[in-house]
Amino acid sequence: MKLQNDLLLRAAKGEHVERVPVWMMRQAGRILPEYREVRAQAGSFIALATTPALAAEVTIQPVDILKTDAAIIFSDILVVPEAMGLPYEMVEAKGPIFPKVIQSKKDIDLLKVSDPETDLGYVLEAIDIVKKELNGRVPLIGFAGAPFTIFCYMVEGRGSKTFSTAKKMLYSQPKLAHLLLQKITDSTIYYLKAQTRHGADLLQIFDSWAGILSPEQYRKFSLPYIAQICNAIDEVPVTVFAKGAFFARKDMAKLNCNVVGLDWNMDIKESRKMIPNKTLQGNLDPCVLYGSFKDIEKETKKMIKAFGTQRYIANLGHGVYPDTDPEKVKCFFETVKTYSV
Amino acid sequence: MKLQNDLLLRAAKGEHVERVPVWMMRQAGRILPEYREVRAQAGSFIALATTPALAAEVTIQPVDILKTDAAIIFSDILVVPEAMGLPYEMVEAKGPIFPKVIQSKKDIDLLKVSDPETDLGYVLEAIDIVKKELNGRVPLIGFAGAPFTIFCYMVEGRGSKTFSTAKKMLYSQPKLAHLLLQKITDSTIYYLKAQTRHGADLLQIFDSWAGILSPEQYRKFSLPYIAQICNAIDEVPVTVFAKGAFFARKDMAKLNCNVVGLDWNMDIKESRKMIPNKTLQGNLDPCVLYGSFKDIEKETKKMIKAFGTQRYIANLGHGVYPDTDPEKVKCFFETVKTYSV
Repeated sequence: MKLQNDLLLRAAKGEHVERVPVWMMRQAGRILPEYREVRAQAGSFIALATTPALAAEVTIQPVDILKTDAAIIFSDILVVPEAMGLPYEMVEAKGPIFPKVIQSKKDIDLLKVSDPETDLGYVLEAIDIVKKELNGRVPLIGFAGAPFTIFCYMVEGRGSKTFSTAKKMLYSQPKLAHLLLQKITDSTIYYLKAQTRHGADLLQIFDSWAGILSPEQYRKFSLPYIAQICNAIDEVPVTVFAKGAFFARKDMAKLNCNVVGLDWNMDIKESRKMIPNKTLQGNLDPCVLYGSFKDIEKETKKMIKAFGTQRYIANLGHGVYPDTDPEKVKCFFETVKTYSV
Repeated sequence: MKLQNDLLLRAAKGEHVERVPVWMMRQAGRILPEYREVRAQAGSFIALATTPALAAEVTIQPVDILKTDAAIIFSDILVVPEAMGLPYEMVEAKGPIFPKVIQSKKDIDLLKVSDPETDLGYVLEAIDIVKKELNGRVPLIGFAGAPFTIFCYMVEGRGSKTFSTAKKMLYSQPKLAHLLLQKITDSTIYYLKAQTRHGADLLQIFDSWAGILSPEQYRKFSLPYIAQICNAIDEVPVTVFAKGAFFARKDMAKLNCNVVGLDWNMDIKESRKMIPNKTLQGNLDPCVLYGSFKDIEKETKKMIKAFGTQRYIANLGHGVYPDTDPEKVKCFFETVKTYSV
């Protein structure tokens, strides 16, 4: 089906756009009262993510309410370890907890390379529903975590500022780490390809914990696996967003992907120079949306001026914070749409 | 009193050294069983930090046990807000919690600019004891948090990945933020000057949360206050360590300080180019110390080769992790001492 609004895809491919497309990481989430209602109905975050009809509903909410230029499937990067055989719980105010973690070769052997159609069918079913309901209004973004970020959770067992337990394995048992990373990568490629078969129009890889590695470790333990994924996907455009990996921007330019996401630490003009051949996405500090409407307009305009209106997808530099006023988000979106023409 | 080992001070001032000096952030702490004994005797972290004889004892332990080229006074950056009238508690496995936080001008007015001799006398007394006991063996490093990092805790009330509550004030009430930052800066300058009067031979400013700001916000809300401190201290050399502020390295070169600390995300040769006129300190990934002795030697040598042996102070890129084997730390120290001659 032909998309009515394909700005995101054209920008991703480097084609001319009439105005800058805009969406927002975590747009389907706690900022919207409509989301919180469905979330309450589901009973838990995991119940919501694993019930296709409800996941589809919250995926579409921001398209209707915030007028985003794309939907992103409501899910979690940790569904992949779960599908591989390592389940997690979402603990209120604490985040994800894995009761079992990976410590040995035997632990890795017991994991399987997941089959998306059976192990992650609930996400694919949600994609089916979303595609039908969107009916071509805007593109749908699919996603997965980068193998290194997934590795962090599978070894550490929970969120952490340092992920020192996970990093310990990189230094003390590098072969074991590579074995696990490869298994995650294989699962992720199958999963992302399945998402495109079900209709995802663009895929984003989130390397949320990229910033805890040294440049050298990042080149050893993260980039090669992201590269494998980028090389395996030729169905749709791919975005790589590695938060904190300012030091890897020149490497990103060499990846077989279309779009590179920036966080707000990364200077826009410097990043354009380092990644001249890709579309860039980002990078407003989510905290700007705590400011006045006037300041949001000012900061958004400044950002667009620095990026320019072509080869650019407007977004925040990270997920929107849950206590953000949706009216402030609308102000951000409207500023992009009117200023970037 | 003339120091027997003044390598750190000579390196800081850019003078020739026979070998690279080495110490380690958080060297006085949980890695040492001897520390854990004194900590148990004190009953709590805060009791330990506020009992001069015990704080002095754990300050000197790493000099004796690990043969560091400097002692760093055992204390906490949060003693400054406490001295200003905002007390905190240290909650096991959670970190610092401030029962009251700063939200309004009235809250700021109720804070005082602290007088170190009365409000922080226990730190100064610990410095007196350490200086006497060290008896000139190695220099003593004093320290304080950078005003922005202290601000983060005073507004957020606890540790956080995003410090979004604290950052909210920067965007929504910038004048209020500047008022608080100035009051913290004034307190910090008095405090650091008092440390030098009592014998601190070098001062380090820790901007632990620098990395959560955009380059523009960092230049507005952190750098000017660090610059004020650097300009106010002319008694001893000053080190600025702003974790995550890779984007501010060129600005660091312009500060009136002697040493700039690097974290392990920052490429060494690139940083030398950006900060050509200062001594650099750092930057081994603390996780390297989880590796084998052989790998620790290899990584340490690689680091020294990249920094060179002059205008350089060897250290980790962040505090040592508490579960690190002291034998691995010794291996790091010995490698620096033998390889950098």
